[in-house]
Amino acid sequence: MKTKLTLIPIFLLITLTLSAQRHILSVPELPGYVTLKCDFHMHTVFSDGNVWPNQRVGEAWRDGLDAIAITDHIEYQPHKQYIPVDHSAAWKIASPIAADYNIILVKGSEITRKMPPGHLNALFITEPDSLVKDDFMKAVEAAVAQGAFIEWNHPGWKSQQPDGIPRMYDVHRELIAKGWLHGIEYYNDVEYYPLVMDMCRDNQLAIMGNSDVHGVISEEFAAPVYSHRPMTLVFAKERTMESLKEAMFARRTAVWYGDNLAAPEELAAPLFQSVITAGIPFRDDGKRIWFELSNTSDIPMKLSGGPEGAPATLTVPAHGMVVVRADRKFLAQPVTYAVDNIITGSNNVLKVEISPAKK
Amino acid sequence: MKTKLTLIPIFLLITLTLSAQRHILSVPELPGYVTLKCDFHMHTVFSDGNVWPNQRVGEAWRDGLDAIAITDHIEYQPHKQYIPVDHSAAWKIASPIAADYNIILVKGSEITRKMPPGHLNALFITEPDSLVKDDFMKAVEAAVAQGAFIEWNHPGWKSQQPDGIPRMYDVHRELIAKGWLHGIEYYNDVEYYPLVMDMCRDNQLAIMGNSDVHGVISEEFAAPVYSHRPMTLVFAKERTMESLKEAMFARRTAVWYGDNLAAPEELAAPLFQSVITAGIPFRDDGKRIWFELSNTSDIPMKLSGGPEGAPATLTVPAHGMVVVRADRKFLAQPVTYAVDNIITGSNNVLKVEISPAKK
Amino acid sequence: MKTKLTLIPIFLLITLTLSAQRHILSVPELPGYVTLKCDFHMHTVFSDGNVWPNQRVGEAWRDGLDAIAITDHIEYQPHKQYIPVDHSAAWKIASPIAADYNIILVKGSEITRKMPPGHLNALFITEPDSLVKDDFMKAVEAAVAQGAFIEWNHPGWKSQQPDGIPRMYDVHRELIAKGWLHGIEYYNDVEYYPLVMDMCRDNQLAIMGNSDVHGVISEEFAAPVYSHRPMTLVFAKERTMESLKEAMFARRTAVWYGDNLAAPEELAAPLFQSVITAGIPFRDDGKRIWFELSNTSDIPMKLSGGPEGAPATLTVPAHGMVVVRADRKFLAQPVTYAVDNIITGSNNVLKVEISPAKK
Amino acid sequence: MKTKLTLIPIFLLITLTLSAQRHILSVPELPGYVTLKCDFHMHTVFSDGNVWPNQRVGEAWRDGLDAIAITDHIEYQPHKQYIPVDHSAAWKIASPIAADYNIILVKGSEITRKMPPGHLNALFITEPDSLVKDDFMKAVEAAVAQGAFIEWNHPGWKSQQPDGIPRMYDVHRELIAKGWLHGIEYYNDVEYYPLVMDMCRDNQLAIMGNSDVHGVISEEFAAPVYSHRPMTLVFAKERTMESLKEAMFARRTAVWYGDNLAAPEELAAPLFQSVITAGIPFRDDGKRIWFELSNTSDIPMKLSGGPEGAPATLTVPAHGMVVVRADRKFLAQPVTYAVDNIITGSNNVLKVEISPAKK
Repeated sequence: MKTKLTLIPIFLLITLTLSAQRHILSVPELPGYVTLKCDFHMHTVFSDGNVWPNQRVGEAWRDGLDAIAITDHIEYQPHKQYIPVDHSAAWKIASPIAADYNIILVKGSEITRKMPPGHLNALFITEPDSLVKDDFMKAVEAAVAQGAFIEWNHPGWKSQQPDGIPRMYDVHRELIAKGWLHGIEYYNDVEYYPLVMDMCRDNQLAIMGNSDVHGVISEEFAAPVYSHRPMTLVFAKERTMESLKEAMFARRTAVWYGDNLAAPEELAAPLFQSVITAGIPFRDDGKRIWFELSNTSDIPMKLSGGPEGAPATLTVPAHGMVVVRADRKFLAQPVTYAVDNIITGSNNVLKVEISPAKK
Repeated sequence: MKTKLTLIPIFLLITLTLSAQRHILSVPELPGYVTLKCDFHMHTVFSDGNVWPNQRVGEAWRDGLDAIAITDHIEYQPHKQYIPVDHSAAWKIASPIAADYNIILVKGSEITRKMPPGHLNALFITEPDSLVKDDFMKAVEAAVAQGAFIEWNHPGWKSQQPDGIPRMYDVHRELIAKGWLHGIEYYNDVEYYPLVMDMCRDNQLAIMGNSDVHGVISEEFAAPVYSHRPMTLVFAKERTMESLKEAMFARRTAVWYGDNLAAPEELAAPLFQSVITAGIPFRDDGKRIWFELSNTSDIPMKLSGGPEGAPATLTVPAHGMVVVRADRKFLAQPVTYAVDNIITGSNNVLKVEISPAKK
Repeated sequence: MKTKLTLIPIFLLITLTLSAQRHILSVPELPGYVTLKCDFHMHTVFSDGNVWPNQRVGEAWRDGLDAIAITDHIEYQPHKQYIPVDHSAAWKIASPIAADYNIILVKGSEITRKMPPGHLNALFITEPDSLVKDDFMKAVEAAVAQGAFIEWNHPGWKSQQPDGIPRMYDVHRELIAKGWLHGIEYYNDVEYYPLVMDMCRDNQLAIMGNSDVHGVISEEFAAPVYSHRPMTLVFAKERTMESLKEAMFARRTAVWYGDNLAAPEELAAPLFQSVITAGIPFRDDGKRIWFELSNTSDIPMKLSGGPEGAPATLTVPAHGMVVVRADRKFLAQPVTYAVDNIITGSNNVLKVEISPAKK
Repeated sequence: MKTKLTLIPIFLLITLTLSAQRHILSVPELPGYVTLKCDFHMHTVFSDGNVWPNQRVGEAWRDGLDAIAITDHIEYQPHKQYIPVDHSAAWKIASPIAADYNIILVKGSEITRKMPPGHLNALFITEPDSLVKDDFMKAVEAAVAQGAFIEWNHPGWKSQQPDGIPRMYDVHRELIAKGWLHGIEYYNDVEYYPLVMDMCRDNQLAIMGNSDVHGVISEEFAAPVYSHRPMTLVFAKERTMESLKEAMFARRTAVWYGDNLAAPEELAAPLFQSVITAGIPFRDDGKRIWFELSNTSDIPMKLSGGPEGAPATLTVPAHGMVVVRADRKFLAQPVTYAVDNIITGSNNVLKVEISPAKK
C-alpha cells in the first residue's frame, strides 16, 4: 500500500529532498560548554496545532536543533471532537523518532490560564495528567514535584496583556518566592518583550525564546523575512538531557531571534568573542591601518558608535568579513563599539573593545 | 489564551507572512474554457498524513489551486490508536475554510487494496462510510452510485508493481467495461508512468496528476528541485464544482509536473498556442530574419529538432522570451519543432509549426 | 583561440545560463498605449563605469527593458589615462548588439557640472562631441538643436545638495522658460526626491527614474533587497524610437522603483485599474460578503485606510490575490482605500474605490 | 559630481548591499598548511573581457578568494580600436584596490596561440611586455626568466581541440623537459578535462582550475546552477605571495568546481578527513548502531558503494549531517565508501574508511 508509515516520511525527506537535510548551526559558544539549540514551546494536533508530532522532530532535525519540547495545552483541546484528550500522546508518538535522530525530547505541557497567571510551560515532567487541576498552584506544584522547569510564556501577549507590556502579578511573585518559576519567554513566535530581560536579571531567572509554533516551522519562519526559527541557546556541560536541565536551572541560556542575540550581561561578552576575530593589520600607510574582522557564526554582528578615526558603524556578516580602516592610534588602544544586536537588558546592548591582532 | 483556533492560523499566514500569499498560476488555456488547477490526492492525520485538514486548504490557497480533494485511506488508519476512524472528518473540518477561500473542496476517499486492483480514489462522493466493504467491486459500486469519478492511483508504484511498469489486470478491464473507471494517475508524488498516456488514450480515460502528499507541500516540493506541486489541469466551462466534474468525465484534463505538461494529443497544440507568441521580424539583413518568441506561462517551452537555417534547439523561458535568428525562407514557411516537454503519448511529444507574425 | 568576441558572450549567456534569460515584466498599462520599460542613465568604462558597453545591452535584455540610453559623462573621464576620450564609443559598440536584441538604444550623454546646474542627461542626441562646451547653456543649446530631451539628474544628490532637498536655481528656471528642460529624475540609483513630483507637475515636466549604474546591474540591485532596477515607464503609441520620444515629450511617464510606482495624478488611477481586478462575491452570509482582489502585475499593491466594515489594510501581492471579507453594504457602495505605494505628489498617494464585480 | 571613482564603487558595494559582503569559504584543509582560494585566469576590457579591472578585485573579495591573476591576452586585443594596448594596465589599476582588500594580486598574462601549443598563462611575471614575441618558445623563455609559473590553459577546448580530448604535442613535451610547464587546467569556465588528472600525475604538474571569466562572475556562475566559481585551492605555508608561489611549484593544489574536488591521490584523503567527522554511536539496539556523520565544509560529500549492513549511498550535505544506521559489526571494522565527488584520476575517485568515534 502507498501508505507512508509515521517513521518513513522523515527518512524519505532526509534522503530525497534538499530541504530535508540537517543543517549544522554556527552559533556563539561559552568556553567550557557546548551550545544546545532548543525550542521548548510547540504544539501538535493534540491541542490546537496543525501537525502530527513526528513533524516536530523532522523539523527540529532539519533545523539543526539539539533539544525540543512539545507542549500541548492541558486545558485547551479544540480538536477533542475528533481526537480524545491524551496529554502524553504527542510525546509517545515523537519519542522513537527523536531517538532515531538523536534529538533530546523533553516531555512538557502548557498550563493554560487567563492572565494572571497566563500560560506556563512545565518542562521535564513525567506525568502530564497530574497537571490537570482546577487550582493553578496545585498544577504547578504537581509539575515541580516531578522536577519541572517552569517557564512563563509570552508575558506581554496582547490577547492577555492588551498594552503588550509584561508585568508581574502577585501570583508570579509567589511562584518566584517558592522557587517555582525558572524562566520567562523574552521571545515568542514573532514578538519580544524587552522588560523580560530585566525581570530575569532581577529574579535570577533564565531568558527563554521559543517558536510556539502551531503550523509548519518552514512556513511560519520562511525566507526572506526569516532565516531561522527563534530558539533558546543553552550552554550545557554535555549534550545530554541531564546537562540540558542543569544548565537551564543554572540559567545559562540566551535567545537567538532574527539577527539578534539576547543574553545575560555576564554571558554576552564571551559569546561575542567566541565568533568575532580581528586579524593582524595587513596594511599600514603610516597614518592608518587596515585589518580584517571576521565572524564564524550564522549571526551578523552590527557594531555602532565607533570612535573618531574608525568606522562609525560596521556590520560583520554571518560567515563573513569586513575590512576595518582605522587610525594608527588603534594599534595601541582598542576600538570601542556597541553591538546593537546583542541585547543585555531592556535598555542595554553589549559594549565591546576590538583590537587588531599582534603579529 | 494563546490558542490559535483552526481558522485563525490560516488568516494569520495570509495576512502576515510573505510565504502565505496566494500566487496566481499562469498555465496554458483551452479556448472557450477556464483552466482549473487541481490536486485530487492528499492525506491528513485522519489516515496516514501528518497534517490537520485545514493545512491542505491553506496550501491550496497559497499554491493558486482552484480545487482539491482530501482522500484519506478507507482501509488504512495507522493513527487509530489516537484518532477514532471517521471517514468524513477531514471534509467536515476543511469545508468551512474552503468556503472562506473560494477553494472547491471535492469530497473523496482512497480505496486502498493490494494490486490488483491497487489504490483508487473515489471523487465527488457524498458518503465515504458506504465505501467500507470487503468486496472491492462493491466499494466501487457504492461510489459510482454516488456519482463518483474513479481514479486509479499510481499504477506503476514499485511497492505494488515492482518493475514500475503499470499494467491492466482483469479487474481494471472490468471496471472500464462497466464505465466505473474514469481516470488514471500518469503522475503521482515524484514519479510518472509513461504508459498511462496510452492507456488513457486507448480507453478514453482522463490523464491525472496529483501530489499524494502526506507531509507538507512546501517541504516536499521545495525549491530549487521543485517550483510547484504536480497537478491536474482541468479545462472546465466555469469555475464551479459541477463544471469541474463535467470536464473530468469529458476527460478535458492535462498534467503539469516539473517543467512538463502531459496532455491528450488533441488538446496539446491549442494549449501550446495559448501561451507562445511569435513576433514580427524586427531585423532582416537580406539573408536572415530576427524575431521574438515569448511565453506567457509558468512553464518553459523546450523546442528541439529545428530545421536547417534555424536554431536546432530553443528554450522559451517561463514569462520570458528568446530571439530567433533564422533563414529568410522562414518568412514563407513555418519553422518546425518538437516540444520536448509537452508529452502526448508514451513515446510522443507535441510537434509544432512556428511562423513569425505578419506586419 | 579562447577569445570571446564582444558579441559572443551575450549569446552564450542567453543560451547557456538561467540568469541570462529575458524576463518579461508585467507592469501597469495605460489604455491605448504600450508600456515601454526604460533606463536612461547608465555608465561604461568610457567615463567612470566599470563595464564594456555590450554589458549594458545584455543587462537590459535580461531585465526585460525596451529602451536604454548609455550616458557617459562629457566632462569627467577618469580612465583617460588608459582610454582616449571618445564620446560616441559606447554607442558605436552597443548599437549592433542592441539591434540583434531589439533593444531601442537612445544616444545620450551626461552634461556634468557643479550645482547649479548639476548634471543633466541629453537624450536622443546625434553628435555628443557638440556638447563639449565651456558654457553650460551652449552645451544644452547644442543638444536641443539635435532634438534632445533634457533630463535633470538626481537634483537632491547630497554631494551637490547637502541637505538632500532638490531646489530650482535660476538656471533651471531659465531652462524651463526656454523649453530646454523636459524631465527630472524623481528616482536615481537607490534614492528618491519627493519634491520632484511637485516640480514636474507644476512645470509640466516628465517624471523620470533611472539606475545611474556604474557597476553591474545584477549586483547593485540584487535580491533580497532589490527585485529589479529602478526604471522609467513610458506610455508610447508604439514600440519605436519615435513613439518613445513623442511619449516622453508628452510626459506620459511613471517611475517604478522597489515596490512603488510614482505617476502623475492623471495617470495613476488608470494604471492601478489596469492590474487590479475585483471578483464577484463568492460567499454571502447575509451580513458580509467575500470577494477576491487580484493583481496581474509585478508590483504588489498596498492599500490602507479602509472604511469600517472592510479590512483596514490590504496588500494584493504581485501576481497574487487576497480575499476581501466586507460588510454587505459594499455591494451598493465602493470600498475606498489609499494606495500607499502609488505616489502622485510629494505628499500624496492615489485614492481608489473598489467594488466587487457584478454577476 | 556624481562620478564614482574607481575605488569608491567597491566600498559602496561592500557597505551598502548584501551581495557585496565577503563570504568566508569553508573548504578542506591540509594539515600544516593554509588553504588559499585562487582564480588565476580572468580577463578585462584590456583584452576581450567586459569589465574594468577593479571589478575583478571586488568579485574576488566578495567571493572569499585569497589570490587572483588577471591574465589578459598578449596577442589578442579586440578592443584596441578604443583602448591602446597596455599589457600592464589591468595590473596597475587593480593593484591599489587589491592592497586595500588584502587580495594577493598575481601579475600574469595569457600567451595566446593556435594549438599546438594553445594558450598558456604566465603567472608571477614582472614584465608582460617582454612576452610579446613571434616565437612562442621565446615568449615562454622570457616568462620563465622572470620566475613564472607556466599553466597550460583549457587543453581540451573544442575550438582548438575539436574532439575535446586534451593531448600533449611535442611542444608541450619540450616545455616539460625544460621545466617550463608547471600546471595544467583540469577545469576551465564550465568544462573539465578528465585526462588532465593523469597528465599532471605522470609529469609532476599542478592541477589547476579557473574561471577564465570574460563577463561578470556573479552572472556567469549564478544560482541555482552554480553556487561558486571554479577555483584552484593552493595549500600554502602562509597567506603570502611567496608561500603561494612555493606551494604551486610544489604542486600542492586541488580544484573545486561545482560540488566536486579534484586532487592528487596523496592529498585527497587528508582533505576529506579535514571536513568529515563521525560521531559516537548514539543508539545501539543490539543489532544496529546509529551515528552521525557531519561535514564542516561548503562541499557536500557523496559516498557510494557502501558495504552490506550499511547505507549503500550517503550524501553528507555542506555544513550538514546525516545519521548512519549500520550493522553492529561496524563497531569493529570501518565502513568503506567511494567518494564520488573527490576525483583523483581520469578514472578514479577517493576511497575512504569511516568508523564511528569511540566513547
